[in-house]
Amino acid sequence: MNLTVKGSAQRYGQHPGSLIHVGPQRVEAIRIRFIDYDRKDLEERDVETVDECFPLRGRPTVSWINVDGLHDVALISRLAKEFGLHPLLVEDVVNPNQRAKVDDFGEQLYVVVKMLRWNEEARRVEGDQFSVVLGDGFVLTFQECYGDVLEPVRERIRKKVGRIRKLGSDYLAYALLDAVVDGYFVVLERVGEQIEALEDRIMTIRGGQGDLLERIHALRRDVTYLRKLLGPVRELAAELERGGNSRITEEVMPYLRDLSDHAIRVDEHVASYRELVSGLQDVHLVLMSNKMNEIMKVLTIFAAIFIPLTFIAGIYGMNFDYMPETKLAWGYPAALGAMVLTAAGLLFFFRRKGWI
Amino acid sequence: MNLTVKGSAQRYGQHPGSLIHVGPQRVEAIRIRFIDYDRKDLEERDVETVDECFPLRGRPTVSWINVDGLHDVALISRLAKEFGLHPLLVEDVVNPNQRAKVDDFGEQLYVVVKMLRWNEEARRVEGDQFSVVLGDGFVLTFQECYGDVLEPVRERIRKKVGRIRKLGSDYLAYALLDAVVDGYFVVLERVGEQIEALEDRIMTIRGGQGDLLERIHALRRDVTYLRKLLGPVRELAAELERGGNSRITEEVMPYLRDLSDHAIRVDEHVASYRELVSGLQDVHLVLMSNKMNEIMKVLTIFAAIFIPLTFIAGIYGMNFDYMPETKLAWGYPAALGAMVLTAAGLLFFFRRKGWI
Amino acid sequence: MNLTVKGSAQRYGQHPGSLIHVGPQRVEAIRIRFIDYDRKDLEERDVETVDECFPLRGRPTVSWINVDGLHDVALISRLAKEFGLHPLLVEDVVNPNQRAKVDDFGEQLYVVVKMLRWNEEARRVEGDQFSVVLGDGFVLTFQECYGDVLEPVRERIRKKVGRIRKLGSDYLAYALLDAVVDGYFVVLERVGEQIEALEDRIMTIRGGQGDLLERIHALRRDVTYLRKLLGPVRELAAELERGGNSRITEEVMPYLRDLSDHAIRVDEHVASYRELVSGLQDVHLVLMSNKMNEIMKVLTIFAAIFIPLTFIAGIYGMNFDYMPETKLAWGYPAALGAMVLTAAGLLFFFRRKGWI
Amino acid sequence: MNLTVKGSAQRYGQHPGSLIHVGPQRVEAIRIRFIDYDRKDLEERDVETVDECFPLRGRPTVSWINVDGLHDVALISRLAKEFGLHPLLVEDVVNPNQRAKVDDFGEQLYVVVKMLRWNEEARRVEGDQFSVVLGDGFVLTFQECYGDVLEPVRERIRKKVGRIRKLGSDYLAYALLDAVVDGYFVVLERVGEQIEALEDRIMTIRGGQGDLLERIHALRRDVTYLRKLLGPVRELAAELERGGNSRITEEVMPYLRDLSDHAIRVDEHVASYRELVSGLQDVHLVLMSNKMNEIMKVLTIFAAIFIPLTFIAGIYGMNFDYMPETKLAWGYPAALGAMVLTAAGLLFFFRRKGWI
Amino acid sequence: MNLTVKGSAQRYGQHPGSLIHVGPQRVEAIRIRFIDYDRKDLEERDVETVDECFPLRGRPTVSWINVDGLHDVALISRLAKEFGLHPLLVEDVVNPNQRAKVDDFGEQLYVVVKMLRWNEEARRVEGDQFSVVLGDGFVLTFQECYGDVLEPVRERIRKKVGRIRKLGSDYLAYALLDAVVDGYFVVLERVGEQIEALEDRIMTIRGGQGDLLERIHALRRDVTYLRKLLGPVRELAAELERGGNSRITEEVMPYLRDLSDHAIRVDEHVASYRELVSGLQDVHLVLMSNKMNEIMKVLTIFAAIFIPLTFIAGIYGMNFDYMPETKLAWGYPAALGAMVLTAAGLLFFFRRKGWI
Repeated sequence: MNLTVKGSAQRYGQHPGSLIHVGPQRVEAIRIRFIDYDRKDLEERDVETVDECFPLRGRPTVSWINVDGLHDVALISRLAKEFGLHPLLVEDVVNPNQRAKVDDFGEQLYVVVKMLRWNEEARRVEGDQFSVVLGDGFVLTFQECYGDVLEPVRERIRKKVGRIRKLGSDYLAYALLDAVVDGYFVVLERVGEQIEALEDRIMTIRGGQGDLLERIHALRRDVTYLRKLLGPVRELAAELERGGNSRITEEVMPYLRDLSDHAIRVDEHVASYRELVSGLQDVHLVLMSNKMNEIMKVLTIFAAIFIPLTFIAGIYGMNFDYMPETKLAWGYPAALGAMVLTAAGLLFFFRRKGWI
Repeated sequence: MNLTVKGSAQRYGQHPGSLIHVGPQRVEAIRIRFIDYDRKDLEERDVETVDECFPLRGRPTVSWINVDGLHDVALISRLAKEFGLHPLLVEDVVNPNQRAKVDDFGEQLYVVVKMLRWNEEARRVEGDQFSVVLGDGFVLTFQECYGDVLEPVRERIRKKVGRIRKLGSDYLAYALLDAVVDGYFVVLERVGEQIEALEDRIMTIRGGQGDLLERIHALRRDVTYLRKLLGPVRELAAELERGGNSRITEEVMPYLRDLSDHAIRVDEHVASYRELVSGLQDVHLVLMSNKMNEIMKVLTIFAAIFIPLTFIAGIYGMNFDYMPETKLAWGYPAALGAMVLTAAGLLFFFRRKGWI
Repeated sequence: MNLTVKGSAQRYGQHPGSLIHVGPQRVEAIRIRFIDYDRKDLEERDVETVDECFPLRGRPTVSWINVDGLHDVALISRLAKEFGLHPLLVEDVVNPNQRAKVDDFGEQLYVVVKMLRWNEEARRVEGDQFSVVLGDGFVLTFQECYGDVLEPVRERIRKKVGRIRKLGSDYLAYALLDAVVDGYFVVLERVGEQIEALEDRIMTIRGGQGDLLERIHALRRDVTYLRKLLGPVRELAAELERGGNSRITEEVMPYLRDLSDHAIRVDEHVASYRELVSGLQDVHLVLMSNKMNEIMKVLTIFAAIFIPLTFIAGIYGMNFDYMPETKLAWGYPAALGAMVLTAAGLLFFFRRKGWI
Repeated sequence: MNLTVKGSAQRYGQHPGSLIHVGPQRVEAIRIRFIDYDRKDLEERDVETVDECFPLRGRPTVSWINVDGLHDVALISRLAKEFGLHPLLVEDVVNPNQRAKVDDFGEQLYVVVKMLRWNEEARRVEGDQFSVVLGDGFVLTFQECYGDVLEPVRERIRKKVGRIRKLGSDYLAYALLDAVVDGYFVVLERVGEQIEALEDRIMTIRGGQGDLLERIHALRRDVTYLRKLLGPVRELAAELERGGNSRITEEVMPYLRDLSDHAIRVDEHVASYRELVSGLQDVHLVLMSNKMNEIMKVLTIFAAIFIPLTFIAGIYGMNFDYMPETKLAWGYPAALGAMVLTAAGLLFFFRRKGWI
Repeated sequence: MNLTVKGSAQRYGQHPGSLIHVGPQRVEAIRIRFIDYDRKDLEERDVETVDECFPLRGRPTVSWINVDGLHDVALISRLAKEFGLHPLLVEDVVNPNQRAKVDDFGEQLYVVVKMLRWNEEARRVEGDQFSVVLGDGFVLTFQECYGDVLEPVRERIRKKVGRIRKLGSDYLAYALLDAVVDGYFVVLERVGEQIEALEDRIMTIRGGQGDLLERIHALRRDVTYLRKLLGPVRELAAELERGGNSRITEEVMPYLRDLSDHAIRVDEHVASYRELVSGLQDVHLVLMSNKMNEIMKVLTIFAAIFIPLTFIAGIYGMNFDYMPETKLAWGYPAALGAMVLTAAGLLFFFRRKGWI
């Protein structure tokens, strides 16, 4: 998860459209999965080199080539050449610091978003870049690392679930983006559970909560990160919904409207998470301050009761030769009694004031 | 009331338009109520199966089918097929996590909002999803659970109050939405009472208010929830008002303008509630801090008066052989007098400073 | 003044356009004032029943009927029938919870705003609903209670001041709204005086200011109330200025632009009042905290000086048999001297540190 | 400088377009300066009565009449009649509470802004109203009091600097507004110096800073005032830049774009001043609280060290007959030694904890 | 870095379009670099006077003249005359207080932005003004001081990298702006490192952190500065992307879209930096307050334990003749035991309360 800029030096001074893979290599080996289908037939396989996919071009089927891993610039460059991708498009594919956006290059429609994942161990959100290139009869997708978020879509293609085998490549692109956005809800649910767990901890247990502040701060960062990532997804979806892209058919438009609606919900969820976390922070501060005040109050009252008693003891500790009380047999018990009375009076006074 | 995402796992990986009911089943048995009317005639009954409603289709009357409970996917699927509903529309009907919105599917206009209810026991707002499908001569409504918010509309149909029997299905759809929005005002009045009660408690009673913080926090959550829910209703109403929907006649437009006006008022009320609650929170903090400070001040002054007295006592408690005062008969009363004078002087000084 | 929703139950379940007067009856008896004028002639009288006004309809004069009090639904209903008012318009007239707005019903233009009044006793702002219906040759106005804010307009009609007798009913409607908006400035001046008086109190007097917090809170509520009420007036005026209303002639447009300009100024004044009050609140908190800190600091220093002195006294209060100092004649004065020196040293140290 | 509404009572109940001068009379005598020029000739003089200017009307020169002082309503009324000004325009000229705005009255273009001045003595910003009426071949300007901000423009006219003598009355109006906006930068520079001086004081000197809070509060008011005044100037300039005003020629448009750019910069400067002042306030609070905490900490540690020592002294001050230590010759030095050790141990402990 | 206005006095009273260099002279000598190229040929040299560049005008090549240093007004004035630049354009070039903007003067397109630099020593951001004038076949650039941010572009021209030698002067202008915006990412990365370093310091080390507050304040200023500078760059890029500028060809439009995308990312990064810094400030305050509270709590508990013990000692320090306990042999050990028991009881009580 980065909220700050990384890897700017690697790209600095390069010409626009230059192919430099920025950031860490996230997978060991590039993996290419190829699916080609129409209403009747389906061909699916893992290929070694992209060249294996090229013979299938030009057929009236829908071809989907998925590349896991972005570091093999040569391979991506070959793909780009074969499918006639614009240099700026390819530059964005290999640079994993993109903002979610849609770019219409005429021949191709390019959409880039982040796939989100909840890292249970580190208890934080992580994101990988996901690029979709929608062209005439083909969809190219590029993922930063192996992920299974697209598996349900493959399954639906295999099992002919819904309309996926009946509609074209634009529906496939939609279905992939829809799967990514559905993944957001899963991550949001996890984050929501974190927030609720934290709320429970803050509101109930009052003991030592050493790491609470760190947890709240981490959650706040998570939510800032989500906002930064998912806000643009909403714009992207709205832009797709507005239509006007040459690559998208009328039949798919209602689905894009649905996608946009989901993206809006995601964004609004993040907004209310933000408010929840900030509310938690306030409550936590107030409770901490209350607890501290409670301690200080009890101790100060404690001191306030003993101070006059000690004073009385001090009086009769004075060494004056002529102190009549000290000669009396009942002087000592009387002094003790005065102390008890003073303490009781003060306790009564404090209680009536509502302080204890 | 959920502010966080729930049930995302159930839907994850499903194809768009798949019919999966998400979330808890809120009613035991589906209940179907059927009303069919025109200017003269009225037929109203509870039906067992949706098939009973179908023979009435195609007549120039207005048919209203109300389904309470969303878990019987087969039934809703039958309705959808009979009335030619779009798969995405049906998907939204059975998924009770929708954001208020209007979707124009050409043949049908789909509106989904939340009905709100004030839960007196838990002292919080609760919401159920309410879907309206407006088609040619029919209105279908789907509620999450049995509710009586629509009963006044039925009553008006029965008694021919207003223009409801003279206008078409679009007016019926409007009347239903209007009833839902009127329900918002009732809930807002309850929340407003809560806020005012809390304000009274904060401003007047100063004693132990152990749960005040929890109450303020709960109210803040309520208001956040209302804002999240009702903000989109305003947009929805504005979109309806702008018109351009094929299913809505010119005669009904002024009513939609009125609806939009109500929705704006709802939204502005929520905005000022938000400000009120946040103001309450500030005032509460300040009052708590004032009270704490008051206690600390009194106790510190208390200590400050006794400290010099104890010091005087300490002096005459020293065991020097040669302490002339201790030999004098009036030494002891003089010391006591000095103590009283010191205390009086300090009290006077503190009072002149305005500290007590 | 209500910031929260009231009276929603009374309207709940009513059909749109139903005539139910909501809220308290604010005047004892309905009062109807009638003015009819053209360039030359003027007729003015108080009428008992609305029917007295009807014979004058259809003449090329401007008729202005003003109704004080909203509870006589029958009367208003008669007026509505005679002048052909839309049911939704009449519903809004009798429901005093309207948001400022303009509604163009074609035949009539309906404008509803709040008249504001400064209640000197309760030191707070109060508002009454004011409805203007502008029709062909007539203006109907409805006030919640008797008010004299419209008197200057009557005076101008009587004395032919300005262009009021030369222009039509649209100018009259403008003049009435202008009078209402001018009244806002009077109220804003009062509120501004309150803010400045409070600022003076906060910045100068430092003594007991028990009710300051309540006053600031009240002012904040006032400003929130003004913002809620007057924000929509700005929109309303902008909408009138944009024109396109059939009932408004070209000649009156510059006046509406002027009205809009005033409404913007009102809104901006409220915005800066809001900032002022929130600034006051901050300053008040800081000053209160400073004062508290000052007290605590003085008292703590006080204690810090006596603590070592008491310790010295404690040493020589010990009962060891062999304490050489206690046998010396100058032991006692030396101990006292040590105490004085210690106190002086501490005072000097604290002063050099800048603490006293 | 007023942030609150003043003088509303004077105007209340007046008809729109009535000529009432509101607010204090700022100059003793009205002063009228008249300049008439074309490419070749220039006539400049101070006139006693406005009538002296009228014979020059209708010539193809540019006439500029500047009136200092707004209280002579009769004079302004004469001017208005001669130049055919709209009543609403004149009303705005004499009412010095205008919001910066541009009003196109067809025959004349009316622009009203505030001239700002830094009052070095009171160390605060002051503003006077400046009205510009641009008509066919003439420019009328009205100032609240004598000011020299327009002198550079006169100088440029006299010395034929730049294009001022080559272009028409619209360029003159632009040049005057540009001079006013340039004056804003001078005032902003002064305010910026105040902010930086305050920042230095806050960050360096830590001693008694009694008036810091007042200074910050005053600066905050200044910035609020600037924001209220200059925000509308930005809108005004943008409106002029958008063009469409009949009185402005194509040649002057780039200059208006430049003016708009300056107004945007002014507005953005005010925005960042606002942030700076609010940042200062935060830092000031934190530093004050740190200082207070530092004092309290030292004093509390002080007390914490003496409390156990006094306790030890208390033990040996007890009067038990059988206390073996008190009989020993080295009992007293041992007790003193124990005290020293205790104090040293506590000091060491506090230091290791990083508290001192 | 200035956040406040500087040098306004120098420009005050000047006519629009006057050539006055404002602010400090940043370089000793003006340096002029000249590059002229087409697809095949390239000529590059440093020239002494601008006149050396003029003979090359009119050829179908792309000429790029870069001027480092803005103080030689005569030189810039010569350039302006030769290339027919508008006076307002030249005025903006020599005044280094410009807001990032694009101005279309028809013949030339003028873009002004800031180049950013991270000053490692002062650990803060610095900015120099960079002006680009795009004309027919030429690009003029003006820098405040010598910089190497454009060197990569020169290198690409020399080595024919990418499309720079194939496209015209508009692509060159784009490439220069792109280089500047790429430079922003480098600076943002540095600032991001500062933020993360600070976060580490705040979250881990708890000792004396004297300058933390100053560092946070400085970072906050940096981020405010970046926001003020880079917000307009986003607008500028959006305006370029919208197109409609006569000087920009269709082929370059996708690149401008890319530039706009980068500018949006820059702006969003700054926005999240702002949130991060403000979050850090909150966390820092809370941690400081926690630490202070921890100290106060320990010391207060410390005092609370000794106060009753000292009271017990005080009792037996009283000089009553009849105090039976003092006569007993085990009186002293019993008193000591009572003290130990009291202390243990209090420690147990405080621990059970969770206070220690």
